[in-house]
Formats: sequence, C-alpha cells, structure tokens
Amino acid sequence: MLTCPDYEVILQSAKRIKPFIHRTPVLTCQTINDMCSSEVFFKCENFQKAGSFKYRGATNAVLSLSETEARTGVITQSSGNHAAAIALAAKRKGIKAFIVMPSNAAKAKISAVRTYGGEIHFCEPTISSREELADRLVREKGFPLIPPYNDYRIIAGQATAALELLEQVNNLDIIIAPVGGGGLLSGTALTASGCSQKIQVFGAEPQGADDAQRSFIAGKLIPQTAPNTIADGLLTSLGSLTFPIIQKYVHDIELVSEDSIITAMRFVFERMKIVIEPSSAVAVAPLIEQRGKFEGKRIGVILSGGNIDLDRLPWM
Amino acid sequence: MLTCPDYEVILQSAKRIKPFIHRTPVLTCQTINDMCSSEVFFKCENFQKAGSFKYRGATNAVLSLSETEARTGVITQSSGNHAAAIALAAKRKGIKAFIVMPSNAAKAKISAVRTYGGEIHFCEPTISSREELADRLVREKGFPLIPPYNDYRIIAGQATAALELLEQVNNLDIIIAPVGGGGLLSGTALTASGCSQKIQVFGAEPQGADDAQRSFIAGKLIPQTAPNTIADGLLTSLGSLTFPIIQKYVHDIELVSEDSIITAMRFVFERMKIVIEPSSAVAVAPLIEQRGKFEGKRIGVILSGGNIDLDRLPWM
Repeated sequence: MLTCPDYEVILQSAKRIKPFIHRTPVLTCQTINDMCSSEVFFKCENFQKAGSFKYRGATNAVLSLSETEARTGVITQSSGNHAAAIALAAKRKGIKAFIVMPSNAAKAKISAVRTYGGEIHFCEPTISSREELADRLVREKGFPLIPPYNDYRIIAGQATAALELLEQVNNLDIIIAPVGGGGLLSGTALTASGCSQKIQVFGAEPQGADDAQRSFIAGKLIPQTAPNTIADGLLTSLGSLTFPIIQKYVHDIELVSEDSIITAMRFVFERMKIVIEPSSAVAVAPLIEQRGKFEGKRIGVILSGGNIDLDRLPWM
Repeated sequence: MLTCPDYEVILQSAKRIKPFIHRTPVLTCQTINDMCSSEVFFKCENFQKAGSFKYRGATNAVLSLSETEARTGVITQSSGNHAAAIALAAKRKGIKAFIVMPSNAAKAKISAVRTYGGEIHFCEPTISSREELADRLVREKGFPLIPPYNDYRIIAGQATAALELLEQVNNLDIIIAPVGGGGLLSGTALTASGCSQKIQVFGAEPQGADDAQRSFIAGKLIPQTAPNTIADGLLTSLGSLTFPIIQKYVHDIELVSEDSIITAMRFVFERMKIVIEPSSAVAVAPLIEQRGKFEGKRIGVILSGGNIDLDRLPWM
C-alpha cells in the first residue's frame, strides 16, 4: 500500500481481517462516568487476539502480502505486542515469522512470541540496533519486512478498532487513543475524519516519552531520545507516515504523568475488573487527571492491550 | 418467601431485579477450549454491580421487602461480597444497611461497604460471633435480617445468573459454579433443572473448605469447622435451605487444591485479561485439573466475582 489509506481502504481492511480478529466488546463504568461527568465507552482491545490492537494491523499486513511474498515468511522488529501479533498472524497464514526483539523486552511478551511459533532474534535495546538486525535478516532471508507502525497496511489495520467502536456506539464527541509510534492514533484519526461525524481525536502520551506532543507543537518530527516510562508500548517515536496524519487529523495530544498512569491502571483493574497494560492506562489517565475538560461529552477510549508481567504490577 | 423457589419464581425474580443489575457478558477463551477440548462459556459476574453475583440476591431480597419493612433499614452479616451487595442495594432503595463483618475481612471489601454507605459493625472472625452480633442488632434496631445465602429470596436472586447464561448460550451440557454457603450453586441448580434442557450442574469447592462435598456424600449437613483456603468467599458452610436443593439437583461437587485455584486465577488474568477473585477461580480450576473429564462438552462457568486486594495477589 503506497498511499495513505482513505475511509474506503479502511473499510476494505476491516472486511479483510474480520474473519480472523475478535470484534472486541465496549464496556462502560458508572464510577468513571460519575467521576468525570461524562459518558465513557471503553473499546477493549486488551481482549483482542494476541492481547492487543496490534493483531489488527499485523493481520491486515500479512493478508495483504502478494502470493509470492506470502509463500515464505515475514520479518519484523518490535519490543512486544506487534511481535506477538505478527507471530500469530504468520502462524495462522502458515508462514514463518522472524522477530527482532530487544534483549530487555518484557518476559510475557517474549513468551507470547514463542507460544505463537515466532523465531526471536535478540538485539541491543536501541532503535538503531533493532533496525540494523532487521535489515540484515531481510537481506539474508529475502522475506518481506512488516514494520510495527510506519506502514500504511498497519495503519489501515489499526484504524479498524475505531471503525468498530463507531459501529458499536453512536454520537461520540471524542476518541482518545494512546500514542507511541502512532499507528493506532493515526488510524483512529483517519477513521474519525473519514466518517461523517464530528469527532475530536486526542492522543494520550506519557510525559517520559513525549515526542508526539513535541512534534505536534513544533510541526516537525522530533524523535524520542531517552524515553522513560512504564508504558513499554509507547517508547518509540512517531514515524514519517504516521506523523503527517496525526498532524492533520488529531485535535490534541494529552501528556500524563507516571503516577497518573499507575493510578488509572489500578482503577481499571479495581473498578472495571479487566486487565490492561500501562500503555492502555495512558489513554484513561487524562479522564482522571483533567476531569473538567471532558465534562458532558461522550468519549471513546481505546484500551490498546492487556499484556503485562503479572509478577511485576506497577503499584506493588 | 417461605417455599423453595420454582422456575416461575426465578423468572419473576429476574424480572424484578432486571432494571437494577448488569446483564453481564459471556466471554470465551480459545486457549481454554483447546486445552480441555471443549467449549467453555464464562458468565462474567465479576462485572456485576458491587463486583459479584451477590448483588442479584441482595437486590431481590431488598426489593422483596414489604412496604413497612422497606421504610427503614436492613441488617446482614457477611465476610465481604454479600455485605457490599446489600449496602449498595439498600443505598439504591434509599434505606440504611447495618453490616456485621469479621474483623479480618479483606480491606477491599470493607472499603466497598463503606463506599456504598453501609454501617459496619465488626465482630470476631467466627461464625457464632457474627450471628450473635447480627441477632443483637436485629433486636436493637428492629430491622429485618437478610442472610447471605440461607434465604429463598437470595437463592432465587442468585439463580438469575444461570438464567441469563442459558439465554445467552444454547445447548450447554454442564454448568460449574463455586460453592460456599450454596446460594449460587443451589440457585444455579434450580434454574438448570427448571428449564427443559438436560444440564448437569457441578459445584466446585476448595479442598480446604470441603463441607459441601462431605455433606453431599454423607447425605447430611456436615458444617465446616476450620476452613483454610484463599477463596475467601467460600469459607462458610452450606445452609439448611441450600443443602437440600444441592442434594437433589446437583450432579457432583469437584474439589480443587489451593495450587490449582492460584493457577486458574492467574490463567484467567493472563489469557482472558479479566480480574477475578480466588472464589471465581475455584470454578475454573476443575477444567485445568481434570481436562479429560469435560472433553467434547459445552460448559458454562460462573465467574462469581472480581473483588480482590490488588496489593496481595496470591501468586506474588
């Protein structure tokens, strides 16, 4: 896919992946509604296959491969959820997946990739090291690379989460999605702008990895240098394809503190009785931090995933 | 309610409480299905208001009070979920709730009762101490007592969880519910036997609080003397009203070890991404412990609740 996906392409992607993904439920929570005097609808991508929205993009990308390409295998690099998603999507397609992961990736995520039969190649925990090893594997194996977010097939796949949400809930005023590399946020914004409704899309980002907000304000890509946050899915920087979409269609980027992320995560465990990872909590935190801001609105929140190390919950 | 609720009474109870309770979702998990070569449908009462199925019985009991009784307040005694459920049901009705709780009740459960405006009276952590204090409060205040399980209004209310499950899923062969005092299990068995389908109902019980199995085998009530299990909702003994129903309509009682409870609980967190309490995990454990036994069946599992102390997860 060489051009930015329009609404029609998102609809096609949704149709392509529909038989393979979960149509995840939308949950509500009276306590949160009362707390921020609004109606909040949580799109539970933590219940998605492989535990996160990433399975949408991965499935769309793998199913978009040409017959020749799809006969062999795929390569990717990711710290976690995209890795597991590609491994599972490749397994379902009956092809191999070679995954470059940083040596410090979460144990649960490494174990998920192995469960799905992905072949892991560890690298140093830097973006350059990851990309070098991935490029080398591409040269050696000759298989196509499926990037974690900077790819229109991936963006179109992630866009289908918001598409489903808009089918499930009417008249949303706002959608909040977490932002790391920007695949989910750009896809969400494309969906929202593509449908006729007037919906403001907000990105939510940890203070300790705030390249999206800085880029958004500066009007140019400012890569993350030393990200520091427990939201391990949001350490990456925006990409050359995701940033222009975000710049054009996203209303604003909300920064949240580490304390707020942990508070929001625990709140969702306690009150909603569901397991989310810190990156998901980033999109809940603005509702708790800035209650007044969202008063009287109908708000969709994309809970991006639920893959955590249960031995190391952040409030322990 | 002076006679054992029949199917018609359960339907009436469902109608009575419907506007006040959540119709909780039914979730499935491919990994569990694959693991035990069966189809398992989880009725998520952890998503119920006040965090457990107990809100069904509590609401049914409070709404069944006479006009005179309902003008004032109610009294109950419970180690946790029933206490919170009564406090919330009373609050919704606009009356007071006086709750006798053991001094060692889980912090999260004490805090829930307080959130819902219940007035807590602490007692020693023995059943006799609880009952004495509850009786004294009844004499002093003159308010009606709503027991946690040995009460037909409560049993009929709890029976509505299985009723909903049977509306949501067709052709179940088996339903598994945890058993403590037997309110949920007896209600489930009444529902299953009352509908035309041939469904076997199993109780699931911790080895460390196995009075239901012992009573079931002996054919007479054998109260629990020194229960010892992390499933804090299942410490109580069967009651004089719940036992005969269980004896008549329940197929069998499965005992599970503490290790299995913890394994099942963690499995549900990790794979299903939902928060359940140990008592819920007791009904999942037989599927993991005795995989062969349930092969080829369509199984409903009632996940009874999700109220846990997140600072003290049992695998930590």
